[in-house]
Amino acid sequence: MQTKKRLVFVFTVFWLAAAAMPAQNAPVPAGKALTAAEILAAARADEWRPLDPENTLYLELAGGRVVIELAPVFAPQHAANVKALAREKYYDGLAIIRVQDNYVVQWGDPEDENPVKARSIRKARPTLPAEFERPFDESIPFTPLPDGDVYASEVGFSGGFPVARDRKAGKMWLAHGYGMVGAARGNASDSGGGTQLYVVIGQAPRHLDRNITLLGRVVQGMEMLSSLPRGGGAMGFYEKPEQMIPVRSIRVAADVPPAERTELEVLRTDSETFGRLIEARRNRRGDWFLFSAGRIDLGNMTVPVRDKNRAPET
Amino acid sequence: MQTKKRLVFVFTVFWLAAAAMPAQNAPVPAGKALTAAEILAAARADEWRPLDPENTLYLELAGGRVVIELAPVFAPQHAANVKALAREKYYDGLAIIRVQDNYVVQWGDPEDENPVKARSIRKARPTLPAEFERPFDESIPFTPLPDGDVYASEVGFSGGFPVARDRKAGKMWLAHGYGMVGAARGNASDSGGGTQLYVVIGQAPRHLDRNITLLGRVVQGMEMLSSLPRGGGAMGFYEKPEQMIPVRSIRVAADVPPAERTELEVLRTDSETFGRLIEARRNRRGDWFLFSAGRIDLGNMTVPVRDKNRAPET
Repeated sequence: MQTKKRLVFVFTVFWLAAAAMPAQNAPVPAGKALTAAEILAAARADEWRPLDPENTLYLELAGGRVVIELAPVFAPQHAANVKALAREKYYDGLAIIRVQDNYVVQWGDPEDENPVKARSIRKARPTLPAEFERPFDESIPFTPLPDGDVYASEVGFSGGFPVARDRKAGKMWLAHGYGMVGAARGNASDSGGGTQLYVVIGQAPRHLDRNITLLGRVVQGMEMLSSLPRGGGAMGFYEKPEQMIPVRSIRVAADVPPAERTELEVLRTDSETFGRLIEARRNRRGDWFLFSAGRIDLGNMTVPVRDKNRAPET
Repeated sequence: MQTKKRLVFVFTVFWLAAAAMPAQNAPVPAGKALTAAEILAAARADEWRPLDPENTLYLELAGGRVVIELAPVFAPQHAANVKALAREKYYDGLAIIRVQDNYVVQWGDPEDENPVKARSIRKARPTLPAEFERPFDESIPFTPLPDGDVYASEVGFSGGFPVARDRKAGKMWLAHGYGMVGAARGNASDSGGGTQLYVVIGQAPRHLDRNITLLGRVVQGMEMLSSLPRGGGAMGFYEKPEQMIPVRSIRVAADVPPAERTELEVLRTDSETFGRLIEARRNRRGDWFLFSAGRIDLGNMTVPVRDKNRAPET
């Protein structure tokens, strides 16, 4: 009995176990309900898509690389401006200035209040009009979740991103959730633009939806942001310069030599496999689950990502 | 313009700003909609309740103290057993063995598979029957949230804890969310009991509701758990003993000399002020919010806690 004690006290979550398994085309056992791990392992090669290097950012920290996929379908001007800022090396040598528990990590220029030392912008735009939401467009692929949402009339996934829609209002927008990346702003709707970026590291702050421009999501390396020491100041700002975490650089993946890129693939959210994963998440299988919710909310439905050189994460 | 640049790029969230403000009975401006900060500052003294030392645990780590309030109304046997384990010093010298990103921190006996080295239990119970849910009881105070929930027919707060109810099924249960504390178990429903405990550090994993016994919540010190390095093994287990985070001790607050206790007060969730905070969270005020959701989900409604000796956190 003792020899299995550790196992007994591990509560196993099959979806998450799947994330740690090498992704491969495994044979599918016929005639039984599959676990998420089995479904994912059986995905066809063409259900995975590689990240587009022109649409991918590498945030380089001392601890390693954070990979961000941009969302130009929802924030075309912000995605283009953040790339322009990266290409003129605006972010290089700036810092993570804020880590607020259960909320956000935020980086930018710690000297932006100092007229002498503030980092100057050459070709990119310092601010942009809001891209909080976009017109409803039926032609944009959308995989709905079937169980409703507290905040929006419809939620689901589009191009790998969590999306909410309101047909009556004629709008659709990226939804806040773990790993989503946005452009901090002041009180004016057009006071953001990408010079300060934030990443959600806690409970999906859905009240920020339609209030601020989301422009992408972290697809690898979240743990480097989420485990940072929390800032001691109001709203999680670091109070002393030496507490700030240096941002070595942000690069557009296309500008990085191919041999130095992180080759990730994202499961297509318009694929049959993703649809089957939604059902597996609604109805958990395996020996551990004694009660199946039969439901899934937007924040708990993650999009699988795999890396040929690392164990995949979801 | 430059002198206010920092301010411009801070996106202010008034509720969270409130958390960093000293709580006091501030005069309430008449005739206008109040922010959450103003509502909280105006709470009557009797709307706050002190933690009951017999119902409070101190988890002592090298980084400081994590304070946990137990929930005997929902998990009477588990709450009593965890106190019994603490009182026989079962946890002292054990370790945090698992930190899984966006999911849980978990501690217990790293040697529990070793029949020679495994920590022995004297008076407490090694395992207990499940307390995943309890009979619906109209007499238990319950403050509902008005905007629905993806997982349950009714959600709200009871005695400071997030709670879901299903009148038709005749059940009510603690709901998983940030900071909730539970008893890890194996596949059998009665294989938990409190020797291994977990704390949610990410998106509310509501699919665990009714599958595992929740027994309390962290009311202070979450940032010491949420910022720990993530484990590199499957499901976030640390792979090497030297990576594990020592648990110095767990004590029942009543057993700690009064001068060494952390004197916290929790806003009563059956108070008028808490009801007003729900409305303020549904309808965000202040200059920053341009769009008000008019809705709030369970995971985003936090229960204010204050400490006479520290800035309060929510």
